[in-house]
Amino acid sequence: KIDPDRLWDSLMEMAKIGPGVAGGNNRQTLTDEDAEGRALFQKWCEEAGCTMGLDQMGNMFAQRDGTDPEALPVYVGSHLDTQPTGGKYDGILGVLGGLEIIRTMNDLGIKTKHPIVVTNFTNEEGTRYAPAMLSSGVFAGIHTQDWAYERTDAEGKTFGDELQRIGWKGDEEVGTRKMHAFFELHIEQGPILEAEGKDIGVVTHGQGLSWTQVTITGKDSHTGSTPMPMRRDAGLGMARVLEKVNEIALSHAPHAVGAAGHIEVYPNSRNVIPGKTVFTVDFRSPELSVIEDMEARLRDEGQKIADDMEIQIEFEKVGGFDPVAFDEGCVTAVRNAAERLGYSHMNLISGAGHDACWINRVAPTAMVMCPCVDGLSHNEAEEITKDWAKAGADVLLHAVLETAEI
Amino acid sequence: KIDPDRLWDSLMEMAKIGPGVAGGNNRQTLTDEDAEGRALFQKWCEEAGCTMGLDQMGNMFAQRDGTDPEALPVYVGSHLDTQPTGGKYDGILGVLGGLEIIRTMNDLGIKTKHPIVVTNFTNEEGTRYAPAMLSSGVFAGIHTQDWAYERTDAEGKTFGDELQRIGWKGDEEVGTRKMHAFFELHIEQGPILEAEGKDIGVVTHGQGLSWTQVTITGKDSHTGSTPMPMRRDAGLGMARVLEKVNEIALSHAPHAVGAAGHIEVYPNSRNVIPGKTVFTVDFRSPELSVIEDMEARLRDEGQKIADDMEIQIEFEKVGGFDPVAFDEGCVTAVRNAAERLGYSHMNLISGAGHDACWINRVAPTAMVMCPCVDGLSHNEAEEITKDWAKAGADVLLHAVLETAEI
Ligand SMILES: NC(=O)NCCC(=O)O
Ligand SMILES: NC(=O)NCCC(=O)O
Repeated sequence: KIDPDRLWDSLMEMAKIGPGVAGGNNRQTLTDEDAEGRALFQKWCEEAGCTMGLDQMGNMFAQRDGTDPEALPVYVGSHLDTQPTGGKYDGILGVLGGLEIIRTMNDLGIKTKHPIVVTNFTNEEGTRYAPAMLSSGVFAGIHTQDWAYERTDAEGKTFGDELQRIGWKGDEEVGTRKMHAFFELHIEQGPILEAEGKDIGVVTHGQGLSWTQVTITGKDSHTGSTPMPMRRDAGLGMARVLEKVNEIALSHAPHAVGAAGHIEVYPNSRNVIPGKTVFTVDFRSPELSVIEDMEARLRDEGQKIADDMEIQIEFEKVGGFDPVAFDEGCVTAVRNAAERLGYSHMNLISGAGHDACWINRVAPTAMVMCPCVDGLSHNEAEEITKDWAKAGADVLLHAVLETAEI
Repeated sequence: KIDPDRLWDSLMEMAKIGPGVAGGNNRQTLTDEDAEGRALFQKWCEEAGCTMGLDQMGNMFAQRDGTDPEALPVYVGSHLDTQPTGGKYDGILGVLGGLEIIRTMNDLGIKTKHPIVVTNFTNEEGTRYAPAMLSSGVFAGIHTQDWAYERTDAEGKTFGDELQRIGWKGDEEVGTRKMHAFFELHIEQGPILEAEGKDIGVVTHGQGLSWTQVTITGKDSHTGSTPMPMRRDAGLGMARVLEKVNEIALSHAPHAVGAAGHIEVYPNSRNVIPGKTVFTVDFRSPELSVIEDMEARLRDEGQKIADDMEIQIEFEKVGGFDPVAFDEGCVTAVRNAAERLGYSHMNLISGAGHDACWINRVAPTAMVMCPCVDGLSHNEAEEITKDWAKAGADVLLHAVLETAEI
C-alpha cells in the first residue's frame, strides 16, 4: 500500500506553487508557475530514480525501468496545470499519485517486467488555450503539432511561443512512444461517489464534449438615445441563446449538460449597447447522437434568435471529443484491484474530459476515480480527504502492478 | 456666422489624438491621450486670446473677457473625453464649437457685455469611472469631490490619483463659479432629427437615467461533471435578468429604454460554470415615475429569478439623474436663434445625459442639437456632416450673443 502522508505532503507542496486567492490554485498552463511546478515534479522524479523524457509539446515522462528491456512501459499520470480559480487535486492527484506508486515500489523493492512511466500532459484544462487536453490530443494524433502551436490565449500569445518561453519544449517527437497500457487516477469532479458512499469509481466510459464558440454581432450604440426598435443588442441576443442552451440540455436530462463559462462583451461600456459578444457553449453527453442533436439545435435556434433580432450569429467548433469506452482489460484491472484491497467501488461514466480519453485511442486505457467533497471542482474550494487519495493511489498501484507484471 | 471649415479642421485635428481602431476615437478620461487633447485645446484657446482656468476636478474654463467686469459669464462647452470605441463628435463638437464661436467673435471684432467661457468637463462619458457627468455633477453640488476622487476604474486606479498623474488637477475650488447661463451644443446621438429632416433640435427636456449594478453569485463548478440540478449558474441568472430588463423597458414603450452595456463574468473559463457575474443595467425615461417603476421591477423580478435558481443577487445604484426641464429663457434663445438664421428646427427631449443636465441645477441652461448619421453614437462610425456642425455652431453663436448682450 502507498504512503498516504507522503502523497498528501507532495500534494500540499505542489499547491504552494501558483496559489489562488481562496485556498486553491492558479497555475495555468505555460505560465511561470507551470514551469516551477514542472521543475519540482522533475526533481522529485529524479530523487525517485526516474529518468525524465520531454517531448515537443512539453509532455513530461518520468521512467522507472522494468526488468525486460523489450517490454513496453505501463503509463500512469494526468496533468499539473490548473484552472484560473482551480483546486489542488484536479490532475495533480493523478501525477503525484503516479509518483507515489513509484516511491512505494522503491520502498518495497518491487521490480516489474514492464517499465513504469509517470506523465504530466501539457494544457489539459483548456482554459488558457482551447481545446482542453491539447497535448494528449497531439500525442494521440488528433491534432497536428503545428495547429497546437498556433493556438492563442486571450492576449494573443501562441502556445508554441509560450512553451518555448517557459523553457519546457523538449526534443522528443510527440506520439512516438508506444504504451502497454495507460491508467489515470483523477478526482471525480462530480457528486456521485460521495452520494453513494463509495471509495472508488471504476470508470468504464467518458461522456463526449462539444465546445462551440458563438459570435453575435449587433451594433454598438447609445443606451440612452437609441430607440428600442433600432437596437441591435448583441448582449440581449446572447442572453436568449444562453436560455436556449439550458433548455436544450434539459430536454435530454439526465443524459446531457450544457452551459457557457466563457463570455466576452464588446465594447463593454455601461452606456453602449453591446455591438458584439463572444461566448463558448459547452455541451456534454455520454451519447454521441445527443451531442450532435444539441449542436444542431444550438445552430438552428441561435440562427432563429439572430434573424428575429436582425443581428448576425456565427458558430465555430473550438473543441470536442466523442464519448469514450475504456479498454475492458484495463477497466477489469482497476475493478479487481479495488476488490482485492477491499475498497467499495462502482462503475462510473466520467463527466469531465481527461487525457485518458485521448490516450485510449492509441493504448489500452482506464481511469480510477476517488470522490471529492460536494462534487465540487473547477473551484478553489475543491477538496478531498487523505483517505480518498489513499484509496485511489492504492488501487492505481495494484492495477499497475497487475498490468506491469511483477 | 461661424467658419465651418475651421471648425471641421479643429474636429479632425483633435480626432488624431487617441485614435480608435475603426475610424473613431479612444480618448478615455484621465488617460495620457486625454491629457494630450486638453493641451491642444488649451493651446487653441490661448491663441484665441482666452485665459484658462482649471479646477480641482480638472474641469477647464477658457475665458474671453466681456466689457462689463461685473457681469457673470455665459458658459458654453461640453467634454473632450470619449468612449473606448467612441466617435469624433460626441462632446467634442460642443467644446470646439464653443471655441469656434470665440474665434468668430474675434474675427468680427464683436464685444459682449458678459464674458464667454468655454468649458471642458472631466469624465462625462462615465465609461472608465461611473457615474457619467461626474465632474459637472461635483460642480453642481450633486457629488462631493472626495467621493468623486475615490471612484475606481476596472484596474482599481482611482479618479483622484489618475487626475494627479496626468497633470490636470487645478487649484480652483469646484463649483464656486457663478454662471449667467450655460449652453451645450451636442450631436443628437439618436435618429429623430435626421428622420424629420431638421437641422436643429431645440432641447426642452432631458430624459432621466438610472444605473443599477447587479451582482449575481452562484457557484463555480465543472461544466462537465456537475449535474444540471446542482448547478448554480450565475451566467444563466444574468441571461434571465437581461431578458427581464428588455421586457420591463418595452412595457413602457415608447417612453423608456433599457439595456446592459457592461458585463463581467467570473472566472470566465470555458469549462467553469460562472460563479459570479457583474453587470450594469441602464434604464432611461423622460418620466421619473417610469424610472422608479423600472428600478423597482428590476429588483423584484431579479430577486424572483435568483430565488428560483437558488443563487444570490445584489443591486447597487451606481449612477443616475432625474428627468430635466431646461430653462425656458435659454430654450427660447436657442429657438429664436434657429428661427432667425433660417434653420429648420424642432423641440427635442435628449435621450442621453449631458453635463448640461447637472449645470441646469445651478444656472439657466439649454442645449442645441444637430443630427448625426443613422442616429448612431457611442460607435466609432459616428458621423455628422459639416453642414450640420455649421448649423449647430451658428445657432450656438446667436443664442450666446443674445444672452451675453453685444
Ligand atoms: N478534468 C478536467 O477538468 N478536464 C478539463 C477538460 C474538461 O472540461 O472536461
Ligand atoms: N452624451 C453622452 O453620451 N453622455 C454619456 C452619458 C450617458 O450615458 O448618457
